[in-house]
Amino acid sequence: MSELRQDPSTRDWVLIAPERRKRPHAVLQPEKRLVTSPGSVCPFCPGHEAETPPEVWRWPDSSGAWQVRVVPNRFPVLEPDGSPHRDVSPYGFVHMPGIGRHEVIIESPDHSADLARADNASLRAVLEAYRARYRALRADGDGGGVILIFRNHGPQAGTSISHPHSQIVAAPVVPVQIRHRFEVAMQHFDDLGTCLYVDLVDREVADGKRIVAATRSFVAFQPFASAAPFETWIMPRAAEPAFGDASDAALDDLAPVLRAVLAGLSDALGDPDYNAIVQSAPPGDESREYFVWHVRIVPRLSTPAGFELGTGMAINPSVPEETADQLRRAVQKHTDPG
Amino acid sequence: MSELRQDPSTRDWVLIAPERRKRPHAVLQPEKRLVTSPGSVCPFCPGHEAETPPEVWRWPDSSGAWQVRVVPNRFPVLEPDGSPHRDVSPYGFVHMPGIGRHEVIIESPDHSADLARADNASLRAVLEAYRARYRALRADGDGGGVILIFRNHGPQAGTSISHPHSQIVAAPVVPVQIRHRFEVAMQHFDDLGTCLYVDLVDREVADGKRIVAATRSFVAFQPFASAAPFETWIMPRAAEPAFGDASDAALDDLAPVLRAVLAGLSDALGDPDYNAIVQSAPPGDESREYFVWHVRIVPRLSTPAGFELGTGMAINPSVPEETADQLRRAVQKHTDPG
Repeated sequence: MSELRQDPSTRDWVLIAPERRKRPHAVLQPEKRLVTSPGSVCPFCPGHEAETPPEVWRWPDSSGAWQVRVVPNRFPVLEPDGSPHRDVSPYGFVHMPGIGRHEVIIESPDHSADLARADNASLRAVLEAYRARYRALRADGDGGGVILIFRNHGPQAGTSISHPHSQIVAAPVVPVQIRHRFEVAMQHFDDLGTCLYVDLVDREVADGKRIVAATRSFVAFQPFASAAPFETWIMPRAAEPAFGDASDAALDDLAPVLRAVLAGLSDALGDPDYNAIVQSAPPGDESREYFVWHVRIVPRLSTPAGFELGTGMAINPSVPEETADQLRRAVQKHTDPG
Repeated sequence: MSELRQDPSTRDWVLIAPERRKRPHAVLQPEKRLVTSPGSVCPFCPGHEAETPPEVWRWPDSSGAWQVRVVPNRFPVLEPDGSPHRDVSPYGFVHMPGIGRHEVIIESPDHSADLARADNASLRAVLEAYRARYRALRADGDGGGVILIFRNHGPQAGTSISHPHSQIVAAPVVPVQIRHRFEVAMQHFDDLGTCLYVDLVDREVADGKRIVAATRSFVAFQPFASAAPFETWIMPRAAEPAFGDASDAALDDLAPVLRAVLAGLSDALGDPDYNAIVQSAPPGDESREYFVWHVRIVPRLSTPAGFELGTGMAINPSVPEETADQLRRAVQKHTDPG
């Protein structure tokens, strides 16, 4: 079982997870990391359902077979058994058992499917799984931590299995970075009486130079201070702190935007490795309308080095206005008419 | 010229530095990034001094030739001309010109030298360069930002030139992460009346399980909550906030410890790619004894993925007690007798 340890110099938690070394092909160097091939060896392919822990959710296709399938991670960073109590070692170090949830959302029975080339209905089914599991883990939890949905695409983005999948983790603590973002938004509310993220979208739309796509209810943009080349956020226009509270209509509208952005990135950058992350308010703070959940897509095009590690400051070797322009033109080719 | 942009959702600064794309072989994917070969094409090799901007510091060898040489970076992330004033765009985005310094410390005339295999005197000369340039940039600056010394070893650590070198950057802003670490230490002082980092070393020494090496004035250890496998800190035992204030005796004592730790890491992990960072208090806060400067060495063995990006929480797939034991045994073989 993993352990959460608190860094006394940052107060942040670190997940000590030696079980992760057992993952398939989890060798150390990403470029040497193999990905599984379809069929005979892939535990996520149809016919291999018994190789995963028991299914917790599925979306059936028209024939009754699974189209999307959610299972507990076989090599979880956090596990559900036990109580998430802190302990202090004789030398004053704070730690706790790695309690939580870690599930895999298998996005398609097709080993070679590409989310960037899927149809709207397939994307919508994946979003349905995201929301269903967010709600389930939120209902199970004590609301004290955080629920994160993410997708690692390609070895530079940390993938160890190439069959298309996302992951959802429920952690028993609020990470410093998430608390900090929430506090900045809360201070903005206290200062100005408005939601920082609603204001941000308004300002990005007014500025206009970094908008990638816009629909009735969503705006895709590359933020003014993008930390990475082609980093793109897709954000609802309405103040909605928690992804778990997204409506059916919102997910219906998100699916084609997400598809167009992923297809545009794939066209513009040649199927780049990327992480996609659903950022949401901590469950304990969902009722406070300071935050807006959003999908953050970070292509892994540059390598953070000593400066970034030592300062936490990103160096972005591209100009967001230029990359947004490039992506906007690529996305337009994938935007549904009307 | 680069630009500093403030992320409104974190208040952190991002360096938008399109000049960096002009670096030699700075292609996007690290595994495809070439490193320069010696002699004819390397701008850091002897005989090519005219290819770098004019030298600002040197350490001569016994024959009068340079042994260590410091030059401004040809592709700087920050440049010295201009005034570091903030500006607010019509849409409320805060930005400023990329004012600062960015220098390269060429550690040896030998293109193939390996700091992990150098003698104590060579290490000591590199540390002399670090301290001399830290002091020079501190004297030039207005004390409002941060000075960071770092070393990128290998392509996974972000190196674009293989000739051994370090870098020093003086930035006009204090990054959120560095401010946060300082605030945690200040709160510790306000709570307990002691220096967090002195306490930390004491606690690590008392616990004993993660100590890699210890001398009269330095302790090398893998922190209780190490964020990365084999992450190792080398810290003075005394409360000294600024690296620039390190004494000659301190650097004399640091050189053999640093050499032994680098050699041990090289033996234990097979010359891993790593970042080494000198963490120091912000120059404006050097007089406050809440912080202790230290060298932080982070081997680049694992790939942060969506979970780490979305939470800022690290997943360490190794156990610090185990890796510290392994490194301690490797380091012992490189420790000077007496």
